[in-house]
Amino acid sequence: MSAIEQKLVAQGLALPPPRAPVANYLRTKRSGELLFVSGLVSTLCGAVGDEVTPEAAKIAARDTMIDLLALVKHDIGDLDRIVSVEQVRGFVRSAPDFMAQPAVIDGASDLLISLWNEAGRHARTATGVAELPYGAAVQLEMILRVRD
Amino acid sequence: MSAIEQKLVAQGLALPPPRAPVANYLRTKRSGELLFVSGLVSTLCGAVGDEVTPEAAKIAARDTMIDLLALVKHDIGDLDRIVSVEQVRGFVRSAPDFMAQPAVIDGASDLLISLWNEAGRHARTATGVAELPYGAAVQLEMILRVRD
Amino acid sequence: MSAIEQKLVAQGLALPPPRAPVANYLRTKRSGELLFVSGLVSTLCGAVGDEVTPEAAKIAARDTMIDLLALVKHDIGDLDRIVSVEQVRGFVRSAPDFMAQPAVIDGASDLLISLWNEAGRHARTATGVAELPYGAAVQLEMILRVRD
Repeated sequence: MSAIEQKLVAQGLALPPPRAPVANYLRTKRSGELLFVSGLVSTLCGAVGDEVTPEAAKIAARDTMIDLLALVKHDIGDLDRIVSVEQVRGFVRSAPDFMAQPAVIDGASDLLISLWNEAGRHARTATGVAELPYGAAVQLEMILRVRD
Repeated sequence: MSAIEQKLVAQGLALPPPRAPVANYLRTKRSGELLFVSGLVSTLCGAVGDEVTPEAAKIAARDTMIDLLALVKHDIGDLDRIVSVEQVRGFVRSAPDFMAQPAVIDGASDLLISLWNEAGRHARTATGVAELPYGAAVQLEMILRVRD
Repeated sequence: MSAIEQKLVAQGLALPPPRAPVANYLRTKRSGELLFVSGLVSTLCGAVGDEVTPEAAKIAARDTMIDLLALVKHDIGDLDRIVSVEQVRGFVRSAPDFMAQPAVIDGASDLLISLWNEAGRHARTATGVAELPYGAAVQLEMILRVRD
């Protein structure tokens, strides 16, 4: 088990089996030293600020990031090959007047930093949207730097 | 005519004249080996799931991608210089509770894969939004890898 | 004072103190020659086309870009190290049927071009969303090319 996965296990977490793409795209695409990771939605559904609480959405953001890492491992073989997290983008399905998208996406960012320390710190944008695929509460994507 | 354009023609499709930017930005910006392609909206207007059907939106996504390729050709001279499609982002103007954004954006992705095969496969995010410029149904942008 | 800041001053503008991140992310992340700049929201709040006019939102987009440049200066030390603006992304909190997002984001793009001329021209996507962090009217992010 890779060093990064051992850190996940130490937090009581684990990588699930990788989810298949829901349409005609790749889970990840390698571009030089960068790895573009496709958007993935949470299994938790509903609008945050309405049927989903911000606290539940933050946990969903963490869990969606774990799912994303499972996809990355599937594609590159070993999470220890990740050198740095460059950028994370989070969309939060928001009820009218819900304004705390950054706190929700911290669920994903906190996890990355717990695993990669300084190299896990990243540029980020958290945005609110009215609708997400399958009615999901959160959608995450990222750009990683990887080594061969 | 480039090999890629011949493939388009073989599908009964053709590149239209390139549309001009609607505001103060570039259609594309070269950055090393990458080409950032600006967001472009469909000429089809309306919210998907309301006045626009998902089927019509999928065709609009394909047609918007053809328009994007016309802009790219205008800027780089020859579509055969495209080495790989790295990332595609699609925003779908969504009626309340419309959740099938990925199937809409497949209209664009299917076309890219038909033209570039494996190199046309890409990372992707499909997101729902309430409003798009000019009331458009779909907005697409992408990052390409190009050769000199 | 750097040459770029002198150009700002000549327009009657100035860099404010850099705003701190509102959650657990970096203001900017260096990735090779690229600098990913995190999303930043305007201090102006409200939906454009409703309580916020398009003209006020365009000025807010300019002011948010000035705030972004202050963050970039904080992180890289000198705005003269910016070689080129590669991509700008703008989200506009839009009232139902507000469709002029590109004109709003021109407030940011016009400023960049006034400061860096041709190198300030960029690929761009302007999108409408229903909700933004803290109820802001505009959110901006960008990718820059920088020299050491």
